[in-house]
Amino acid sequence: MKYLDKIDSPSDIKRLSPDQLPELCSELREFIISSCAENPGHIGASLGTVELTVVLHYIYNAPKDKIIWDVGHQAYAHKILTGRRDAFINNRKYKGISGFPKISESPYDAFGVGHSSTSISAALGMAVASELEGSNEQVVAIIGDGALTGGLAYEGLNNAGAHKNNILVILNDNQISIDPNVGAMHNYLLKFTTSHFYNKTKNRVWKYLGSDKLRSLAGKFLFSTKAAFFKSGSVFESLGFRYFGVIDGHNTEQLLETISQLKEISGPKLLHIVTKKGKGYKPAEDDQVVWHSPGNFDKNTGKRRSNGNQSADRYQDVFGETLLELARQNKKIVGVTPAMPTGCSMNIVMKEIPERSFDVGIAEQHAVTFSAGMAAKGLLPYCNIYSSFMQRAYDSVIHDVATQNLKVVFCLDRGGLVGEDGATHHGAYDLAYMRCIPGMIIAAPMNELELRNMLYSAQLHDWGMSTIRYPRGYGEGVSWRGAPFEAIEPGKGRVLSDGSKVAVISLGTVGNDAAEAIAEARLKGYNPMHIDMRFLKPFDEELVLKAAERCKRIISIEDGTVVGGLFSAISEFIASRSLDVKVDGLGIPDTFIEQGTVPELKAECGYDKEGILKAITNEP
Amino acid sequence: MKYLDKIDSPSDIKRLSPDQLPELCSELREFIISSCAENPGHIGASLGTVELTVVLHYIYNAPKDKIIWDVGHQAYAHKILTGRRDAFINNRKYKGISGFPKISESPYDAFGVGHSSTSISAALGMAVASELEGSNEQVVAIIGDGALTGGLAYEGLNNAGAHKNNILVILNDNQISIDPNVGAMHNYLLKFTTSHFYNKTKNRVWKYLGSDKLRSLAGKFLFSTKAAFFKSGSVFESLGFRYFGVIDGHNTEQLLETISQLKEISGPKLLHIVTKKGKGYKPAEDDQVVWHSPGNFDKNTGKRRSNGNQSADRYQDVFGETLLELARQNKKIVGVTPAMPTGCSMNIVMKEIPERSFDVGIAEQHAVTFSAGMAAKGLLPYCNIYSSFMQRAYDSVIHDVATQNLKVVFCLDRGGLVGEDGATHHGAYDLAYMRCIPGMIIAAPMNELELRNMLYSAQLHDWGMSTIRYPRGYGEGVSWRGAPFEAIEPGKGRVLSDGSKVAVISLGTVGNDAAEAIAEARLKGYNPMHIDMRFLKPFDEELVLKAAERCKRIISIEDGTVVGGLFSAISEFIASRSLDVKVDGLGIPDTFIEQGTVPELKAECGYDKEGILKAITNEP
Repeated sequence: MKYLDKIDSPSDIKRLSPDQLPELCSELREFIISSCAENPGHIGASLGTVELTVVLHYIYNAPKDKIIWDVGHQAYAHKILTGRRDAFINNRKYKGISGFPKISESPYDAFGVGHSSTSISAALGMAVASELEGSNEQVVAIIGDGALTGGLAYEGLNNAGAHKNNILVILNDNQISIDPNVGAMHNYLLKFTTSHFYNKTKNRVWKYLGSDKLRSLAGKFLFSTKAAFFKSGSVFESLGFRYFGVIDGHNTEQLLETISQLKEISGPKLLHIVTKKGKGYKPAEDDQVVWHSPGNFDKNTGKRRSNGNQSADRYQDVFGETLLELARQNKKIVGVTPAMPTGCSMNIVMKEIPERSFDVGIAEQHAVTFSAGMAAKGLLPYCNIYSSFMQRAYDSVIHDVATQNLKVVFCLDRGGLVGEDGATHHGAYDLAYMRCIPGMIIAAPMNELELRNMLYSAQLHDWGMSTIRYPRGYGEGVSWRGAPFEAIEPGKGRVLSDGSKVAVISLGTVGNDAAEAIAEARLKGYNPMHIDMRFLKPFDEELVLKAAERCKRIISIEDGTVVGGLFSAISEFIASRSLDVKVDGLGIPDTFIEQGTVPELKAECGYDKEGILKAITNEP
Repeated sequence: MKYLDKIDSPSDIKRLSPDQLPELCSELREFIISSCAENPGHIGASLGTVELTVVLHYIYNAPKDKIIWDVGHQAYAHKILTGRRDAFINNRKYKGISGFPKISESPYDAFGVGHSSTSISAALGMAVASELEGSNEQVVAIIGDGALTGGLAYEGLNNAGAHKNNILVILNDNQISIDPNVGAMHNYLLKFTTSHFYNKTKNRVWKYLGSDKLRSLAGKFLFSTKAAFFKSGSVFESLGFRYFGVIDGHNTEQLLETISQLKEISGPKLLHIVTKKGKGYKPAEDDQVVWHSPGNFDKNTGKRRSNGNQSADRYQDVFGETLLELARQNKKIVGVTPAMPTGCSMNIVMKEIPERSFDVGIAEQHAVTFSAGMAAKGLLPYCNIYSSFMQRAYDSVIHDVATQNLKVVFCLDRGGLVGEDGATHHGAYDLAYMRCIPGMIIAAPMNELELRNMLYSAQLHDWGMSTIRYPRGYGEGVSWRGAPFEAIEPGKGRVLSDGSKVAVISLGTVGNDAAEAIAEARLKGYNPMHIDMRFLKPFDEELVLKAAERCKRIISIEDGTVVGGLFSAISEFIASRSLDVKVDGLGIPDTFIEQGTVPELKAECGYDKEGILKAITNEP
């Protein structure tokens, strides 16, 4: 490639002339498409920000100046331009580079990310720090319209707009997060980006906005002619930001001119740009939802290659299809998802029963408190939130649901290690942070059929507020579709195989790894007992006592941190009764686990089949 | 009292004529003042909403219609008018009524509360439920301008404004939360409530707004005359709400007329009213911060009576004064509080070093992520958040601070039982939800001097990211002010008294109760060992091993839930080593604890001095 091959850091971009930037963008786009065809990633978002990234690194002096990406899926071009072009082939791989910006990976990654809506708050922190130290660093936050639905983004705007600082917030408006964006802010942005008026006036506006001083005049002029322009910007103007836009986020010339000017304007500023997710690659433009993260594909034909164990269904589909079945029968059931209808498969319900399924946008707290409101009126919400994102709604779970003893069924998808998304996305803490909440039933199915039956049972009278937690990806291949529903009693586990000396106590799908390990151990002459707890809470003391009576050793296995979850619950029981049993806890150790395939990471953590076998046979 | 004595439910209010309502309001105000003089409560907020409450219950048919209070401090009049007039003398008392709306207490309390910014989400949930069941219930949410700074409120607005529903949000604008409100939204509201224009046009506007159909005409008319009115409402209009206001929230006639009209208008609506916190009681109007919750007072003179153990300082003041000392010496130190400068005593720092202390509004997530941004640039933020409110920033702690290993010092005030504020406010879960976060140092001082030294030590090189957790209220009377700073090594506890057979292992200020119980136990011939862990994490295994070697029984004592905290940590250690020790866990049991004095609640939970003594002597 003519330009890209020579770019090892942003200073190499600065050597190009402005009219060479479009060509660099083409090369970058081609590079991202080729790489992601072979090594899957979040291609759509990054194709949409190629021009913006090039221009930002052309204008600003990172790492001194701080460029802060929200969520981070869109930062591939940034990574490639900042010394990670060659490393990019190991994007999201075990021991490779992270799919997200990461402070420890590069000085150009000013702030690590993965979850949504953090960039404005972080940017303000950096701007304040710069001011205190008297440096003149520039701070830029790039946030999508999807991420703007998160309350944290608003908290950041509200604080930044009232504070003396020079941050530039770039609103990257593509009208989609993973699924199409929703909410009043979305409608608001859509209305004025598509208005005829904008197209007619933008050039005139920019003429006036060239100088900081003239801008207020421009404002008056436009307002006096009843121009919608500033009125359109009023949400941000009201929050203390000077609003600029809308401009085409794929036009390097316009970006260059505008952002260069904005660099000279003091105070908090928001630049509104419009981009297209998947820009420049037709299949990705045509189906933005699928091409958010398409897996491997043939870059010439755009044909996606099949991934994973297709003989089994995904857990998320067991959730979606089962919820639809249940909702057909029980009119009290409603579904709630914060911006993940496709990711959690609630779109299956939405298609048939739109009036009882709600995508509330990237707003986990609201998803939970909104569910609580519905539950207070007698509905039965199934609120599906990825495990690691549920951290954001923790107070809503405690304060709005649990203290009021409202019956909400929390369906935690992506519980446990999730693989390539890495540290920010592993559902590592849910078992621990949910267990300490009074009255919370916590269930984890071992397979598809059990998930189906737990979803069914959660409606029943003996279940209260509950959490049903299951992993990302494909199931065990157990037949479940159309199976007659079976009630599962809360707090009751089951003995999968009897044995002596060593008891393996597992929770959730890791029970399948345990079963395999136990089968191998038997071949080696061991005779471990195997218990599937099914529930972390209520805790089946009777069953653990049975294990303790027969075995001198208990091995607990959970797909979550060993601090505060199953291992803790078993230890509490053993220690409080002073039973003569040694408890070993397998699970995610007390450290952050980076990206890789789930098998790689399980092996690293020591609770794959081999790790469990080792623990059983007590071999080093 | 002429009217109030006869009001046992809202239907009794409806028998009055509109012109009798002001008199009822006077009586209510007098009743609240008299009651709170003897039995302390949050008087300021409730005095501000007397007229609104009376009018809402006059117009709406609760409990069928849903009236949802945000935060809940302002709901005293609501409680008194809904059958709890006589019970009000036991407001916030042990076994009395809660200081907040509470579903389990009354059918008129549509949604329980205590924390901020939940009302719009809950109201939308109820409105959606009403629509699904085909009932025509009205749903009203009353939210203060302070609560509007919380991201959850914005998430609620954003979702509600895009959804077909009829909720009415009443923005109760008094420009103060506990301390004066801050942020861009605050500036925005202030600007147009104080504008001259509003006063001139409001009557005209209301004439036009009388009919739903005419409203759009009114809008056009006003806009064409360049009226600021609708422009002023533009944030809410942009978010899909029809904006009405500003009106005087102490004028029953105007409230009655306006809200009656709004009841007939479909779609999401926001009514902006202006009230005065403390309205009608001069001392409370004159010093709104102090009179948020003034304690006992002489209602005639307005003189506040002294409360509590005044011979000791409050822990919050040890925090505030020490942080000021540290910040004077260490220019990297910054302070961050989400709307609690007075409550956590960071106002002490703000007075002297305003440029390095930040009140970010009721925005816990932002407080943490903003701190993370500053830490990424090399500053050392001391981020002070009440323990129960920190639940709302849980993801920010994990995702923005911990995964990036940024050094932020979390100062968790109000850890453990807090007393009269009850279930929503006890800092019961922090030890559990913080312990599972990799790399988090968790410290709990036993007295003022130790808090001082921990705050000092947290800067030092051997401390990373940390949580220093201490209780509400007065200290132990230990001399601390001006004491030379002493470094405390993280993860190291100490033996307070040697002994045998039974070891008491405590964390934090409950160690003082334990010490007293141990002294009494010695008189009875027992010889317990006493260990103060100082740190929950890193966990001092050596010390616990020492206890296990000498004693057959360990009693853990923590001012937090026994699920996931100190008891769990000790149990894990004992069980994983199969030590022959029985562990008993004292602390907050796995249930929600209601309001009362801290001694009453500690006794209920069984970890006051008597409870600990019983545990030591093993008497039933």
